[in-house]
Amino acid sequence: MDKTMFDKGMKIRREVLGDAYVDRAVANMNDFNKPLQELVTQYCWGEVWGREGLSKRDRSMINLAMIGILNRQHELKAHIRGAINNGLSKDEIAEVLLQVGIYGGIPAAVDSFRTANEAFADLDAEKK
Amino acid sequence: MDKTMFDKGMKIRREVLGDAYVDRAVANMNDFNKPLQELVTQYCWGEVWGREGLSKRDRSMINLAMIGILNRQHELKAHIRGAINNGLSKDEIAEVLLQVGIYGGIPAAVDSFRTANEAFADLDAEKK
Amino acid sequence: MDKTMFDKGMKIRREVLGDAYVDRAVANMNDFNKPLQELVTQYCWGEVWGREGLSKRDRSMINLAMIGILNRQHELKAHIRGAINNGLSKDEIAEVLLQVGIYGGIPAAVDSFRTANEAFADLDAEKK
Amino acid sequence: MDKTMFDKGMKIRREVLGDAYVDRAVANMNDFNKPLQELVTQYCWGEVWGREGLSKRDRSMINLAMIGILNRQHELKAHIRGAINNGLSKDEIAEVLLQVGIYGGIPAAVDSFRTANEAFADLDAEKK
Amino acid sequence: MDKTMFDKGMKIRREVLGDAYVDRAVANMNDFNKPLQELVTQYCWGEVWGREGLSKRDRSMINLAMIGILNRQHELKAHIRGAINNGLSKDEIAEVLLQVGIYGGIPAAVDSFRTANEAFADLDAEKK
Amino acid sequence: MDKTMFDKGMKIRREVLGDAYVDRAVANMNDFNKPLQELVTQYCWGEVWGREGLSKRDRSMINLAMIGILNRQHELKAHIRGAINNGLSKDEIAEVLLQVGIYGGIPAAVDSFRTANEAFADLDAEKK
Repeated sequence: MDKTMFDKGMKIRREVLGDAYVDRAVANMNDFNKPLQELVTQYCWGEVWGREGLSKRDRSMINLAMIGILNRQHELKAHIRGAINNGLSKDEIAEVLLQVGIYGGIPAAVDSFRTANEAFADLDAEKK
Repeated sequence: MDKTMFDKGMKIRREVLGDAYVDRAVANMNDFNKPLQELVTQYCWGEVWGREGLSKRDRSMINLAMIGILNRQHELKAHIRGAINNGLSKDEIAEVLLQVGIYGGIPAAVDSFRTANEAFADLDAEKK
Repeated sequence: MDKTMFDKGMKIRREVLGDAYVDRAVANMNDFNKPLQELVTQYCWGEVWGREGLSKRDRSMINLAMIGILNRQHELKAHIRGAINNGLSKDEIAEVLLQVGIYGGIPAAVDSFRTANEAFADLDAEKK
Repeated sequence: MDKTMFDKGMKIRREVLGDAYVDRAVANMNDFNKPLQELVTQYCWGEVWGREGLSKRDRSMINLAMIGILNRQHELKAHIRGAINNGLSKDEIAEVLLQVGIYGGIPAAVDSFRTANEAFADLDAEKK
Repeated sequence: MDKTMFDKGMKIRREVLGDAYVDRAVANMNDFNKPLQELVTQYCWGEVWGREGLSKRDRSMINLAMIGILNRQHELKAHIRGAINNGLSKDEIAEVLLQVGIYGGIPAAVDSFRTANEAFADLDAEKK
Repeated sequence: MDKTMFDKGMKIRREVLGDAYVDRAVANMNDFNKPLQELVTQYCWGEVWGREGLSKRDRSMINLAMIGILNRQHELKAHIRGAINNGLSKDEIAEVLLQVGIYGGIPAAVDSFRTANEAFADLDAEKK
């Protein structure tokens, strides 16, 4: 493991997904999934999210589109939260997910809107 | 929004999925998902389901096959109900889902049969 | 290998895809792909296409939808030909592929229409 | 149905997934899903798992990779159990799922590790 | 068909993909694929690309990500051209496709970079 | 870029895919795809293929299964060659691809067998 890149990735991951989410992931770490946690943090968050060429807002936008098509609702929920943290409005998120419906098919949009609504409800509940 | 096409779509959507299902979707509508509800009703139910060239039974049959492969269980459950409303028997639905297993892989069939069984249980419960 | 089921499958396969196509597949058979040819003929064509519960027209229709979504252009081309042999008109094939566009996304429809046009051109060329 | 192949398949299926799992599948069998249960047992477990050319350990390994990518968590959970029965260690399962992350994308690995952890928890609970 | 929305879609489609590309699509139109051409122009380009909520640059970016994952190389090539027309630099396109590699798997990135290189070569050839 | 991990990855990549293949990839490198080449070599080949927990034969086997399902024929062809280099026989490759047919659907197997046959023909031609 490249410790510098891991630390860079961990910092970005916390900025995007929030400390509560990442603390939970870290607390759930065990011998079995530790190599995944390291790979995700270093590779996904350090090497790619850490690159200069696109804004975090841009990266969130394309992640919603990709993860919506890939039908990974758990990850999508986390990245809806990340998108809000990275400055996308709810209306912009709706635009992204409508476009998912045209290019990835209507069922992908229906599931993605439902998951986004759940993420918004969680965020509202936390504010209280 | 093209109001005529939206109304045509809403009528077909209610015929296929049933009023209870559509009333629930309409009640869950909010500022965020309203553009999706409009797109689905106009585009999916009005423009495509509203075309002449295939019977509703045919359209249900190919939807079960596609949504089974796409692994969208929530939508599949709604379209199992739609398939029954459009005249497919349980045995015909089983034939479609077996063919999903051959062309889309056995796990797609296993999940689709489970979801279909859940839809049938719901329908039986409503009759009582 | 269950010889009876294999023979039943081979008969149906020839009816649907045509002798020329199947002769070519048989001629391309070698030690490496022989187990696949046997599995496909026995299970896909014998066990599933050979079942009573749906017409061949129905089975062709759902195959076009599934293979269009799965993005397997070579197989799709063969099954467009099969669909014509099983009694679907070009207009009905267009209806199936439009529905692929709605549920599987527009790029799936664009590719499927292109492949269908190629299959129709082949069929026209053979008639001359 | 080819009774000899079905019986061969049932024996392998029980060895890999365990009697408790298969007994449950058999108990859930009804008129609707019976053709699927027969097809799966004969075709998937008899014809393919029953072939000589790869060890059961090898077949489990590639199944985890494929089912992880296909996003079929219910089937994946059963095959994690099968992989343990076929001699894969937890560390080897982690290696397979990391490779899923590289070739199938990180969200596929995240979901697959979560499902594997659930399967391990079930196995631990049964031992008590 | 809603003529106003179709005309709006055609205008946007020409701006994004270029007249040469769209002229070719129109010239290839026949009785079979006409309903697809109308649906794509009206819905995809009029109803969705014509919405206010995201810039054309944003929409191009998420399209590259989605179509890269969906493995539709023909469409991807057209949308690479569209992305350039909508103001994305080659470096930004590379960033999007690297992120495709992380979330959709390395083979999706390898194919997408190859297709993008082909699109750039076409564009260079046209300038001469 | 972590130079040590990159070099480790390049060594493994050459062992598995062969010098001719990797030399070609390196020769095709340009400013646009350089970040991908670095990411693939460091992460895919260094971080994951370079791990201890599975043999190269095991890793090839699961790659064939995954890439076969993902429908990436160009990558599949390279990894068929890699599988031969890593000690899999043609018969074992056939077993893997048959299992792809069961779990990922028959069209995935048909395409994968065709691509494997092309790879074998290339290898035979090079020997002459």
